[in-house]
Amino acid sequence: MNRENNSKFIVIEGLEGAGKSSAISLVGDFIEKHTGQVPVCTREPGGTPLAERMRDLIKVADETDPLCDEAECLLLYAARAQLVANVIKPALNSGSWVLGDRHNLSSLAYQGGGRGLMSLVQVVSKATLGDFKPDLTIYLDIDPAQGLKRAASRGELDRIEKQALNFFERARATFLAFAEDDDTIAVIDAGQTMAEVHKDILALLQTQDW
Amino acid sequence: MNRENNSKFIVIEGLEGAGKSSAISLVGDFIEKHTGQVPVCTREPGGTPLAERMRDLIKVADETDPLCDEAECLLLYAARAQLVANVIKPALNSGSWVLGDRHNLSSLAYQGGGRGLMSLVQVVSKATLGDFKPDLTIYLDIDPAQGLKRAASRGELDRIEKQALNFFERARATFLAFAEDDDTIAVIDAGQTMAEVHKDILALLQTQDW
Repeated sequence: MNRENNSKFIVIEGLEGAGKSSAISLVGDFIEKHTGQVPVCTREPGGTPLAERMRDLIKVADETDPLCDEAECLLLYAARAQLVANVIKPALNSGSWVLGDRHNLSSLAYQGGGRGLMSLVQVVSKATLGDFKPDLTIYLDIDPAQGLKRAASRGELDRIEKQALNFFERARATFLAFAEDDDTIAVIDAGQTMAEVHKDILALLQTQDW
Repeated sequence: MNRENNSKFIVIEGLEGAGKSSAISLVGDFIEKHTGQVPVCTREPGGTPLAERMRDLIKVADETDPLCDEAECLLLYAARAQLVANVIKPALNSGSWVLGDRHNLSSLAYQGGGRGLMSLVQVVSKATLGDFKPDLTIYLDIDPAQGLKRAASRGELDRIEKQALNFFERARATFLAFAEDDDTIAVIDAGQTMAEVHKDILALLQTQDW
């Protein structure tokens, strides 16, 4: 995005178990070295007090009142609108870099591809965000079966992590399709060892025109 | 709406202090006499356990994280999607009549007209609800200053009730503009005495082709 200062918005995306957390650490360290300042870190859904309360509604299954797919999608965008307005844009405008754990591409992949609500997602995305988007999205690509195995080994799965495998396969295909068409989205092979993944991410960061 | 049974969805709309509660009682009694069954009553935002939690986020002001207008709009539609999917449509499909305390017209008036987000509201409304709409909307029209005076006399005002008078004036103009173009929306002069308002509502109900 063109901004008056040189701040950047970098997002890490990927399926459950793709290694987002360690990638966020690595990219955070890179940003700190590159800019001399700690980035503002966000997670989605969430990242503001109200958006975290929306996250709770999305993550926790209520068997007496199952969250319908459209409400899930709209809650995600409500939380995103809140985060962009109250955290991300103010940070970027003040010159801080922002490092996001997920952003809009997750909704395109999970709700658009996974749930089959692509037209709702695209309409709401456009109406809510306009042309605001990350400067760089690092998509950690992993086979869903492998990723879910890793995620399950970390403990209890939440409502979305409990979806069937083909939901994640559709989401992965959507991540890859968007990456194909958008040169601000980089695909990293997250099926490699962590050392190899980190090497690829650093190589990517070092070749950016910053 | 065309349904396989003769169930109807009737909504009461109006600014704060327009007399919605007593109108809902009156219409509920009418429905009970007309159909022999108590209608399913809903309120918006809210009406399901999850939608009520969304309502809390909309109604309560958080000064450290003020709800942005876009997030407010999307939360309202998330709550509405949930209510329509889990309460209103199942009730109508089972043959029950549904009596709503507010529905989509409130979002068009308050968020579209009041907040100036009409294009977002219309896009999200269309994408979420499609052509689902009430069979009859009874809009209780009142001068905002008069309505707010009544509402304030009932006690503490919530975040939305505390908006400036011209917000409600824009909302009222929008209610009236939509009523002008849609013959399923009836305007009742709520500035009259309660007896006169109730007489007008009953006359309206008795002339419907049910």
